[in-house]
Amino acid sequence: MSNDLLKNIQIPADLRKLTSEELPQLAQELREFIIDVVSTKEGHLGASLGVVEITIALHYLFDTPNDLLVWDVGHQAYGHKILTGRKGIFHTNRQFNGISGFPKRSESEYDTFGVGHSSTAISAALGMAIASKLQGIEKHHIAVIGDASIASGMAFEALNHAGDTNANLLVILNDNAIGIDPSVGALKDYLTKIKAPRLEIEQHNIFEALNFDYSGPINGHNFEELLRELDRLKKIQGPKFLHVITTKGKGLRQAEQDQVRYHAPGKFDKVSGDVLPKEESKYTKFQDVFGKTIVELAQLNEKIVGITPAMLTGSSLKFMMQEFPDRTFDVGIAEQHAVTLAAGMATQGLIPFCNIYSTFLQRAYDQVIHDVALQNLPVIFCLDRAGLVGEDGATHHGVFDLAYLRCIPNLIVFTPRNEIELRNIMFTAQQGFEHPIAIRYPRGKGKLEQWKTPFETIEVGKGTCLKDGNQVALLSVGTIANNVSEAINLLENNESVAHYDLRFVKPLDTQLLDTILKKFDTIITVEDGTIKGGFGGAVLEHASEVNYKGKIKLLGIPDEFVHHGTIQQLQEVCGIDVNSIKKTIQDLL
Amino acid sequence: MSNDLLKNIQIPADLRKLTSEELPQLAQELREFIIDVVSTKEGHLGASLGVVEITIALHYLFDTPNDLLVWDVGHQAYGHKILTGRKGIFHTNRQFNGISGFPKRSESEYDTFGVGHSSTAISAALGMAIASKLQGIEKHHIAVIGDASIASGMAFEALNHAGDTNANLLVILNDNAIGIDPSVGALKDYLTKIKAPRLEIEQHNIFEALNFDYSGPINGHNFEELLRELDRLKKIQGPKFLHVITTKGKGLRQAEQDQVRYHAPGKFDKVSGDVLPKEESKYTKFQDVFGKTIVELAQLNEKIVGITPAMLTGSSLKFMMQEFPDRTFDVGIAEQHAVTLAAGMATQGLIPFCNIYSTFLQRAYDQVIHDVALQNLPVIFCLDRAGLVGEDGATHHGVFDLAYLRCIPNLIVFTPRNEIELRNIMFTAQQGFEHPIAIRYPRGKGKLEQWKTPFETIEVGKGTCLKDGNQVALLSVGTIANNVSEAINLLENNESVAHYDLRFVKPLDTQLLDTILKKFDTIITVEDGTIKGGFGGAVLEHASEVNYKGKIKLLGIPDEFVHHGTIQQLQEVCGIDVNSIKKTIQDLL
Repeated sequence: MSNDLLKNIQIPADLRKLTSEELPQLAQELREFIIDVVSTKEGHLGASLGVVEITIALHYLFDTPNDLLVWDVGHQAYGHKILTGRKGIFHTNRQFNGISGFPKRSESEYDTFGVGHSSTAISAALGMAIASKLQGIEKHHIAVIGDASIASGMAFEALNHAGDTNANLLVILNDNAIGIDPSVGALKDYLTKIKAPRLEIEQHNIFEALNFDYSGPINGHNFEELLRELDRLKKIQGPKFLHVITTKGKGLRQAEQDQVRYHAPGKFDKVSGDVLPKEESKYTKFQDVFGKTIVELAQLNEKIVGITPAMLTGSSLKFMMQEFPDRTFDVGIAEQHAVTLAAGMATQGLIPFCNIYSTFLQRAYDQVIHDVALQNLPVIFCLDRAGLVGEDGATHHGVFDLAYLRCIPNLIVFTPRNEIELRNIMFTAQQGFEHPIAIRYPRGKGKLEQWKTPFETIEVGKGTCLKDGNQVALLSVGTIANNVSEAINLLENNESVAHYDLRFVKPLDTQLLDTILKKFDTIITVEDGTIKGGFGGAVLEHASEVNYKGKIKLLGIPDEFVHHGTIQQLQEVCGIDVNSIKKTIQDLL
Repeated sequence: MSNDLLKNIQIPADLRKLTSEELPQLAQELREFIIDVVSTKEGHLGASLGVVEITIALHYLFDTPNDLLVWDVGHQAYGHKILTGRKGIFHTNRQFNGISGFPKRSESEYDTFGVGHSSTAISAALGMAIASKLQGIEKHHIAVIGDASIASGMAFEALNHAGDTNANLLVILNDNAIGIDPSVGALKDYLTKIKAPRLEIEQHNIFEALNFDYSGPINGHNFEELLRELDRLKKIQGPKFLHVITTKGKGLRQAEQDQVRYHAPGKFDKVSGDVLPKEESKYTKFQDVFGKTIVELAQLNEKIVGITPAMLTGSSLKFMMQEFPDRTFDVGIAEQHAVTLAAGMATQGLIPFCNIYSTFLQRAYDQVIHDVALQNLPVIFCLDRAGLVGEDGATHHGVFDLAYLRCIPNLIVFTPRNEIELRNIMFTAQQGFEHPIAIRYPRGKGKLEQWKTPFETIEVGKGTCLKDGNQVALLSVGTIANNVSEAINLLENNESVAHYDLRFVKPLDTQLLDTILKKFDTIITVEDGTIKGGFGGAVLEHASEVNYKGKIKLLGIPDEFVHHGTIQQLQEVCGIDVNSIKKTIQDLL
């Protein structure tokens, strides 16, 4: 790999020594560097390839880190990381104790704002710009945001506020017409329209209407255009908007052609670009269990609809989109809208399955309370990627859901232990519940070879005994039951150790729980959610009601943000891996 | 009061028997009816007066309740309630066991969607419209939304989705240039611009850009214009947008002139329109304690800024806006943006006080986790109207906050017992915390005559003993301590009853708690938040860690939605009024 220019660049100050004529060569080298590492170490590919020129141009023209650069989401910040002191450790990207896959303040002074969830960059950069103004500091504040992210409500709120200030803010719209899946919504069509040569009659586009000094669209892979326009905008006061057209995956043919797959392709051949075959597995992702089951159910029940806020592929709702496009709704990065849309549909007798990643449901917490639970509308929430998610790290773990959902009246909270339980609760819920339900399941594969079993109805509020015993009882919810079972199996004398799957975090199976409390002096609860306020807390609350005098030990996510690594590594950090659970049992036996 | 037409109208079918020429007379009668009741029973006035003609026109032309009408927020739905079967019970508005101040599904088939928080109407109506389409049902779906609400991100998400569908949706923008306080943001200026005669060169406004069939602006107090335009829009397919200009408070001179005060003026003279003097009080609202204290602190510390999402008057941040307009930010109904803006400011060394009603922080839950707590940015959240709020009811109680905040790492959660504690924690926090903090305090007046005492620093994580004892210990957080103290005082033999104010829900004062756990066999926790996952749960978690064998009884908000009434009445429902607490103590003594 040619690396003649990149090898001399540790930080942007080095970059600024190049002539502008050398930048295309550097872009080529940077692309090759990204491809080289990501092809073997995995990670997000397409977004970073698409902004190579923008990244170089920004660090070339602006005085980073003094000038403040905020990347929205951060999937696209690999080039930025490599040019800002992290080239030598970029191969540790997303690995335990390695660098984060997203910008992170604690990692570098060039990472001005931690990101991961979308559409925060304009708010953050505006806050910085206002702070500079108030403190009489002259610097530039730049938010780079994609066209999928800018359509989210939060970004609109920020634009609406920024346009009403005279803050020195530059918003760069990286318009590649795709998020993880192709962008949706009326704004996207509009962006397409304004890409056409501007007619005299269209004097004011949306961004101008919001009082931004709009320029573009320009070609985001052309340094001449980028540098000229950025240089011009540096001198303009107030909120500015630069519309840049890029190609996601730019520079790798397959990544340009199959942008969804190459968003985060896993390992691939860096020369041919072909994705390497994944290890054969006899197991199925929970996502596909969801996606295939909802298709089966939708065939049986025409009232079922599916909703996703921009995670059509990730959630596997794409299977339903293929079979029932009229009943499947990708509403874009709009969790708030997704939830209330589902509530509106439920008022008219539809049965909405609203699939949202656990961490992203935090974006629609009020809508779950105010629009769904308060009205007791039977929306079925499928919370994907609950618990620890692994390499995506702290921004993406779905560990707060049990705590933040458990306090909401009317809501049922179910945690399938395996694929069959997920299938059956989906089957049960669509039969017509009187309450909303949240079904939370993890990222990745289950452990059953055969999961496509005939549907069975699950009785609400019923837990189950997985193993009998008489001394210590382990109570788990969800797939962490696997670790508990393994831990018990590893114990030499495990006859005395019982294991129960409570299944419903809400309503708790108090009948079963009372039996357990009567029988056991020592209880260990295990969950892959926060200890504070979670399932263990629910057990404590009930135990205190019935005046339980035994010992209850709570295992789960401790009161700290968990960073990135494999799920196994992170479970070890939290003490909910097999060995930690085994040790806890031994300590209490 | 003339009531010749209104007296014969129970439901909209009666209204439809009138000639269109009679409608102005009905509007006059309806206004008088609203003024008559609200002047003595209190409630939201200005918004409903502003939409009298729109309300009549909609029920006149559309086939409600078959056609589905969704009011955003619902402050403006009094006329709707009166015309849809609730004229005879309208005097019970907002009272315990009376009708709700907001549309509520369980109250009437004409209330198609429960509201209270803003900006949900378009999502809900779109969900209904899609449901009708899928089920082959022909009906109209109408969302009426104000100009302050439509600027919120959620509404934009819904518009963006709707414009990409062919759903039979009519969005009516009730543009009166004010929410509770005057509207802000770039969109508001834009709406003003497009009110001017349309120039040929401005072919596409924002709503047209989002693919709506836009019409207007029309005069919302002119039946001829309203009926003509609504009738025309009934026949148009797909998403439609009608821009209507109204005057908030229309028909009552003072309400038109002082729109902020007459949003919910309390009792007033229905003839003169003058607000009646409130009962003299020697006590101060917590809101004013906040508002006046932040001004004092801002004078001392120039890094302090104040942020409110559209609650400038309600939060009393208006005092700071008067003194320091450059350092005070009303960002509109944009809680998500408000929080991340604060985070951005904090990265640059400002000290943001972000004042948000507890119930509305639910709208920014993800931003608290992802943008503030994860980065450990020292934002100071002032959560106004925490706990039971009284007459605003289920949509507005701030009872989930302790549960949903307690699971967030890095966050400090403080609950001032009185005005001085609120002052002192604000003083403490601005000295430079290493962590974000949430300070939650109730709606309404405190109980101290003298609260403007010299500032004192509060030690983080330290609770306090309010009364000693040796048999039962009551542990409270926040102003509910007043009920606890009164309950103890009412007991004949109260020497044995101790009372502790833990103050910090997080971090818990585990040192104090350990002392308490050692000394007492019986503990009662009291909070005005949900029992599930709240402060009591925190005590249980610590007690289980140290193997406490005594009895812990949790008092707080039970696992159900609490409706409207006086705070006293609602405390009785929840068992946290003075007498209920007294009884609980007696039962356990």
